[in-house]
Amino acid sequence: MSKPLTIIPIEGIGEIRPGDELDALIAAVFGEHAATPLLDGDVLVVTQKIVSKAEGRMVMLDHDDSEAKVALVESESVRILRRRGDLRICETTHGFICANAGIDLSNVEAGTAALLPVDPDRSARRLRAGLARLLSVSVGVVISDTFGRPWRQGVTDVAIGIAGIAGVIDLRGSEDAGGRELVATEVCVADEIAAAAELVMGKASGVPVAIVRGVPEAWLRESSVSAEIIRSAGDDLFR
Amino acid sequence: MSKPLTIIPIEGIGEIRPGDELDALIAAVFGEHAATPLLDGDVLVVTQKIVSKAEGRMVMLDHDDSEAKVALVESESVRILRRRGDLRICETTHGFICANAGIDLSNVEAGTAALLPVDPDRSARRLRAGLARLLSVSVGVVISDTFGRPWRQGVTDVAIGIAGIAGVIDLRGSEDAGGRELVATEVCVADEIAAAAELVMGKASGVPVAIVRGVPEAWLRESSVSAEIIRSAGDDLFR
Repeated sequence: MSKPLTIIPIEGIGEIRPGDELDALIAAVFGEHAATPLLDGDVLVVTQKIVSKAEGRMVMLDHDDSEAKVALVESESVRILRRRGDLRICETTHGFICANAGIDLSNVEAGTAALLPVDPDRSARRLRAGLARLLSVSVGVVISDTFGRPWRQGVTDVAIGIAGIAGVIDLRGSEDAGGRELVATEVCVADEIAAAAELVMGKASGVPVAIVRGVPEAWLRESSVSAEIIRSAGDDLFR
Repeated sequence: MSKPLTIIPIEGIGEIRPGDELDALIAAVFGEHAATPLLDGDVLVVTQKIVSKAEGRMVMLDHDDSEAKVALVESESVRILRRRGDLRICETTHGFICANAGIDLSNVEAGTAALLPVDPDRSARRLRAGLARLLSVSVGVVISDTFGRPWRQGVTDVAIGIAGIAGVIDLRGSEDAGGRELVATEVCVADEIAAAAELVMGKASGVPVAIVRGVPEAWLRESSVSAEIIRSAGDDLFR
């Protein structure tokens, strides 16, 4: 029996500045008289940008200086997979393959750029622990970012850091509806949760937080993007 | 102002057989006394498998005959991008890049395999028109399938056919929350809707249909996967 999910945009977080306590600012919007309380078993999806801002991952960058942009991108990369003009498809220190090392020039102050968090899984664990402390709730946390992908137009949101929510659920060994064993059925629910949340966040609306409510209890467990979602180079047909 | 979305699994469709009228079977579960009515503006997500079954895209295949499996996969492909053992990463006639040409061996009768629909956008348009006729509702339709991707573990659901719902929404030219113009912000909402729906469908639960309720009205427009989502080879850095 499958149950409905609800994807709820959370507004009122306000502008985030380096050094801000993200857990306290997010907990504040879920206070006593909040329109939407945060509940045990919810998954909180938070965009990378406010995590990067709170963690002080802002650097000075003249957005019109293409050379400086490329130099910054390459300094945040361990490998460049493709080049076209000043676009780079990079492997980051985290093992993400994405455009321009995930460096973000929109929704930041003029003359600055946001780097990815140093360790987004750790950021997610801290936020989860902070919310447990401040609100006495046990939630999953997904830190999401917007990545392109080969072969298909348009970007989608994926998980770059997780805590308390499965990355990949493994259905190998379980049976399909016809009673035969399923093969190749590791589903990346963390990326699907990030994608679902993006539908209510939007790029222009400035909503940096959403709740995904109603995920199966079995998915609420310890995990990390680095252990469950990053595919090792040896196991990858496209590196 | 962003609004919540609800993702509702739809049960009771039953086993689909070649020649079944999919629109009539789906309309039947939304009858007068349905727990969940289908509403104008809903997006109905339907898994590829039941579309393929209804359209008679079943072929005989001994699942244990690796050679026959590979021959079938290659016959459904216009190009093979990668080979490993009996796995093929293929470009299908539709322009999809996916494992084994999207041919499906689970949740089908023993000794058979399900090929992709010949034209999933057309399948989506027909289903949308059928539901308009039978239920007097205007809904978006997404036909979803489960694809792997490079660099990240686990599969996610994507859109292989759409009707009445945007594939990609283009935010270029709109402003970010700081008033600066957004760049590179074509978001593939159809894939995000497919991913969101997968969260309630599950691979083992045999729920082949879900509703995504609450998408912005502006997304409800004519579209197709072939025109909006398939990336041309010349525009692709990974072919």
